[in-house]
Amino acid sequence: MRPSKRAADELRAVTLERGVSKHAEGSCLVKFGDTHVLCTASLEERVPPWLRGQNRGWVTAEYGMLPRATGDRMRREASAGKQSGRTQEIQRLIGRSLRAVVDLQALGEAQISIDCDVIQADGGTRTAAITGAWVALRDCVEWMKARDMVKGTVLKDHIAAISCGIYEGTPVLDLDYAEDSTAETDANFVMTGSGGIVEIQGTAEGAPFSEDEFGQLLGLAKTGIGRLVDLQKMAIL
Amino acid sequence: MRPSKRAADELRAVTLERGVSKHAEGSCLVKFGDTHVLCTASLEERVPPWLRGQNRGWVTAEYGMLPRATGDRMRREASAGKQSGRTQEIQRLIGRSLRAVVDLQALGEAQISIDCDVIQADGGTRTAAITGAWVALRDCVEWMKARDMVKGTVLKDHIAAISCGIYEGTPVLDLDYAEDSTAETDANFVMTGSGGIVEIQGTAEGAPFSEDEFGQLLGLAKTGIGRLVDLQKMAIL
Amino acid sequence: MRPSKRAADELRAVTLERGVSKHAEGSCLVKFGDTHVLCTASLEERVPPWLRGQNRGWVTAEYGMLPRATGDRMRREASAGKQSGRTQEIQRLIGRSLRAVVDLQALGEAQISIDCDVIQADGGTRTAAITGAWVALRDCVEWMKARDMVKGTVLKDHIAAISCGIYEGTPVLDLDYAEDSTAETDANFVMTGSGGIVEIQGTAEGAPFSEDEFGQLLGLAKTGIGRLVDLQKMAIL
Amino acid sequence: MRPSKRAADELRAVTLERGVSKHAEGSCLVKFGDTHVLCTASLEERVPPWLRGQNRGWVTAEYGMLPRATGDRMRREASAGKQSGRTQEIQRLIGRSLRAVVDLQALGEAQISIDCDVIQADGGTRTAAITGAWVALRDCVEWMKARDMVKGTVLKDHIAAISCGIYEGTPVLDLDYAEDSTAETDANFVMTGSGGIVEIQGTAEGAPFSEDEFGQLLGLAKTGIGRLVDLQKMAIL
Amino acid sequence: MRPSKRAADELRAVTLERGVSKHAEGSCLVKFGDTHVLCTASLEERVPPWLRGQNRGWVTAEYGMLPRATGDRMRREASAGKQSGRTQEIQRLIGRSLRAVVDLQALGEAQISIDCDVIQADGGTRTAAITGAWVALRDCVEWMKARDMVKGTVLKDHIAAISCGIYEGTPVLDLDYAEDSTAETDANFVMTGSGGIVEIQGTAEGAPFSEDEFGQLLGLAKTGIGRLVDLQKMAIL
Amino acid sequence: MRPSKRAADELRAVTLERGVSKHAEGSCLVKFGDTHVLCTASLEERVPPWLRGQNRGWVTAEYGMLPRATGDRMRREASAGKQSGRTQEIQRLIGRSLRAVVDLQALGEAQISIDCDVIQADGGTRTAAITGAWVALRDCVEWMKARDMVKGTVLKDHIAAISCGIYEGTPVLDLDYAEDSTAETDANFVMTGSGGIVEIQGTAEGAPFSEDEFGQLLGLAKTGIGRLVDLQKMAIL
Repeated sequence: MRPSKRAADELRAVTLERGVSKHAEGSCLVKFGDTHVLCTASLEERVPPWLRGQNRGWVTAEYGMLPRATGDRMRREASAGKQSGRTQEIQRLIGRSLRAVVDLQALGEAQISIDCDVIQADGGTRTAAITGAWVALRDCVEWMKARDMVKGTVLKDHIAAISCGIYEGTPVLDLDYAEDSTAETDANFVMTGSGGIVEIQGTAEGAPFSEDEFGQLLGLAKTGIGRLVDLQKMAIL
Repeated sequence: MRPSKRAADELRAVTLERGVSKHAEGSCLVKFGDTHVLCTASLEERVPPWLRGQNRGWVTAEYGMLPRATGDRMRREASAGKQSGRTQEIQRLIGRSLRAVVDLQALGEAQISIDCDVIQADGGTRTAAITGAWVALRDCVEWMKARDMVKGTVLKDHIAAISCGIYEGTPVLDLDYAEDSTAETDANFVMTGSGGIVEIQGTAEGAPFSEDEFGQLLGLAKTGIGRLVDLQKMAIL
Repeated sequence: MRPSKRAADELRAVTLERGVSKHAEGSCLVKFGDTHVLCTASLEERVPPWLRGQNRGWVTAEYGMLPRATGDRMRREASAGKQSGRTQEIQRLIGRSLRAVVDLQALGEAQISIDCDVIQADGGTRTAAITGAWVALRDCVEWMKARDMVKGTVLKDHIAAISCGIYEGTPVLDLDYAEDSTAETDANFVMTGSGGIVEIQGTAEGAPFSEDEFGQLLGLAKTGIGRLVDLQKMAIL
Repeated sequence: MRPSKRAADELRAVTLERGVSKHAEGSCLVKFGDTHVLCTASLEERVPPWLRGQNRGWVTAEYGMLPRATGDRMRREASAGKQSGRTQEIQRLIGRSLRAVVDLQALGEAQISIDCDVIQADGGTRTAAITGAWVALRDCVEWMKARDMVKGTVLKDHIAAISCGIYEGTPVLDLDYAEDSTAETDANFVMTGSGGIVEIQGTAEGAPFSEDEFGQLLGLAKTGIGRLVDLQKMAIL
Repeated sequence: MRPSKRAADELRAVTLERGVSKHAEGSCLVKFGDTHVLCTASLEERVPPWLRGQNRGWVTAEYGMLPRATGDRMRREASAGKQSGRTQEIQRLIGRSLRAVVDLQALGEAQISIDCDVIQADGGTRTAAITGAWVALRDCVEWMKARDMVKGTVLKDHIAAISCGIYEGTPVLDLDYAEDSTAETDANFVMTGSGGIVEIQGTAEGAPFSEDEFGQLLGLAKTGIGRLVDLQKMAIL
Repeated sequence: MRPSKRAADELRAVTLERGVSKHAEGSCLVKFGDTHVLCTASLEERVPPWLRGQNRGWVTAEYGMLPRATGDRMRREASAGKQSGRTQEIQRLIGRSLRAVVDLQALGEAQISIDCDVIQADGGTRTAAITGAWVALRDCVEWMKARDMVKGTVLKDHIAAISCGIYEGTPVLDLDYAEDSTAETDANFVMTGSGGIVEIQGTAEGAPFSEDEFGQLLGLAKTGIGRLVDLQKMAIL
């Protein structure tokens, strides 16, 4: 029995609220249960130095947590003077995941910066961030289309992410913090709307896991991501 | 005529929403029109090193803006590796203002850390932050009282803040961004519920201002802060 | 009775010594009693990036304290790797105050950098710094005039600053350290030669203060700044 | 045909040279072809603050590259003043991987710090580092055993790592730089001597990959890691 | 002919003014011509962690330059966020030089921190700093003696420093900036009152120098340091 | 008797192994006994900003130690976030020493960056680094010559370095760690192949030293550097 009483293959309540920022070209407040992440997409006219003059664009991401998003207050990274290794790992993952479904040529010489800020955390912040960031990114691209700033298909597919893990011996979908902190194995999956795998990160927290167990996690992930993509589709109707 | 059509002595729509954080001992989402600040109060068992063993507590504050809280995306301070001078100035102001109404002896050897994170900015973020932080702080103190962690009156009074300025020659209350960016003079006032002045910061942006003009701003501020304190009282009913 | 035996409206002995730096285009060693600040004005050919090509200049300021300027040695900021919030707050104030009396158009595309380094501290370092910095700035502008580098009036007025506070219940002018560390209220005023107010910063250190008390501090400040401006005039004869 | 003429399931020439450091308690120079990593294991008496008094030990890892380990000289991280996100990601992976086979209780209150410094890079530095670090760690544990500093089995199993990828449409084992820089998919696998999976990191560099392709990569990895574990066994004979 | 018209073995006008700081236990404003360095000695009750409990003291030094001490304004190190390599090299030299004449056992468990801040620079700042720092250090030790905080002889000898160089083919004493910037060879010597050598740093700026040339520089240094020690003796009469 | 049984004027076993880096334009692994330093020379097309457009080149150096190059593990400088004063001092010395024998005009608008990384330390790392760096630099220049990238003589002479010291009262050559840590006096000498002195750094670790003692150290250094230059000549045959 999961602490949340959910079935093994049951997502938390997921909502994707668009247009939550007055200023950003695209924005989405994504909730996976008590995990709340504000995602904004900002269009910037200039690309990184190493891309200049190549007529291609770039999508990058930054990730942060408010200090009291968590059960115990964490030190503010701006005050500590640097981003933790965990933060950097997550923001690199978000950026890579989004770029996997963007045609950077079609974007033209522009950069879209995605900011994912965790307002409240209860496990799975990176997967919620990727799922919500896609919606913000999509609305930013639509904003550009409406102004004839891009032509052709910039966004090639959906992208969404979910965590799975082995909790008390059972493979389960979408770990919350209570499960995540005791799970034997924790894996994050990023997949496209058409089912292609973009990123897999699996870690044995306790004992190593077997190929078979991993297969079950992957199976759960496919189910969960399918539902998340459906939710994205409904959100942008 | 103000860009927002408000009367000279009219506040923006102000809301104070309590209990917005699952984890924090006290929290408040404060909105001054389109300026939205999430304030959390975190109880920490340990006090700063210079206070240890003195049987007194401390209240401190940190301030941050999400990168796209503003019209143009600003660089994330955690990524830049340091907090700007403006950020430090504001968080020092918030901490000083709150401490003015706290009996640190009554708090005992504990620290309350206030985090004010600007989700969306439209002028007046520091005054909204102080006004909302008081509510979060109050709920944190109530949380402690309910657990018999403090005795006596920790919170001696209300504290709230408002900006005033001279906009196109007229003294006006509660500047929004459109006014703030062109005002000739900009002043922030922090006052207690009983009308005592805790902090005054007045700056001539263009021409110097006169004692008389300053008096008019102070008059507006008293009116505005009176209303904010009323709203705080209603919020904690 | 003040620790220094001064009358309530009496400044400390103030001296403004010009030309103390062999290299700087303008310089002034300002003393407010035992508070000694070396101010230099350095002409730099280039303006900040955001001002380029606009045919306007800039005046900026930096502030520092020698580690043993104070009663206890403080950590050297260069060694600590960053400037404190207090340092940044003060140097932003100095820069804003000076720019209030400079015609940046008349200055042309050039930057004047003011360095205010506290050699010895006994309270009121920021007000001494502003008062002395004006003299250094003025001599730098004269240096430019002598070389036909500017035309018209770059420096529109005098600027000077003083602190006032309520010490043992009495409003007094120009707090020294003994008073500053126990004053109930501390306010800094920056005004022009013609009496315009450029900056007001009032802080209740203990109990909040009333509008009436604040009025008395402002009255003292006007008197004190009037005298400081007279001393500036004599210094540049 | 692979640039190196290797068969699809062929490792580069792998060597594990022990005892290469005069000072370290354990050390290993590992070569995967032209990728050379010096791994040292340093015994330190003290554990991180959060572990004190728990009678458990810790294994941590740091990773670095000499500036000219690569084709173009990279900026020295010590000079840049921080470790890149990539560096932090890799050193966290190395630490996690090693801890998966260490009984931290059996280690007692001691920390073993693993340093993996890339002397020369040609792809696969993180997998070489993990494979060599196990040897250095093992020799450090033997050093402790010889001095009766631990009892029981500290090291529960072998751990080794390999990369696989899809190069020009074909799944291949142990990517070198020429392959890595053009591979469509890149995955790193960390497994124990008994075949348990400890870490999987798969990334689509170009098009997303399918479950079937991923299965083929995992199959290759099992083969490769089996051979690496054999080489570790021979090295410590 | 030297730019300053001095004879080859002639020092600049040297003055050592004691007691220039209201707060420091010892202080000296040293001038070597237009090079002015303010040296303070601060007694601190605590020693560095690695010395605790050994009943020995420590003497350390920090060095800084005011931004406009030089012909062109230099970036403030506190603002740049770090001390330059040159600054660190100099402050390490000052600390080593002073420790060479201090009996750290006799000092007891205390630290004296020397701050050498260059108010104005015209070459030879490090040699002036060492020469003046000795006077500040001596007065700090006297301050301690007057309070029975040390017993026995803490300060074993004088220490002073001078630069020599080969300027237009001629060995000369005490280089000023005009000479220093064009000298072929530049050497700094630190010696005790009894003529022992504590530190030699010789650098060929252009062509390498010969043993014979170096001997001539050493001869000049001995003469110059003898005179500086005489001046120290007169200063402390 | 020296701990190593060497004669007073005997070098440790010195080897200079060229071509140890697959990527660098020049490289040398230098060993002075158990002190091993990997030196690489990297050709970079761009010169520092202050040299641009002057048709001259630059040679610069960076120095680092692997964390466990020493008896006790030292903190990784990249992780600490800055290079120590000692590191900066050494890398500045290496750069200066090499530039003393390079015709920067002949090099043209290019920069050669020398990296000296200490793989294992047993005293004398800076002298080994300079001696080995010359070989790496020479091979880089030859690489450029082979591609007609320079004309004329870029490298004017050999450069090598050695330490000498007074160990238990006797002047000895090439201190290893056991001697270095207890020597009364420690001096580093950098000389050219033709016997010119480029750099002398002598420090009294305990008692000051005399002119006569210094002369003996210089004599030993000349002998030692002569042999090192012979070894360089043999290495490049």
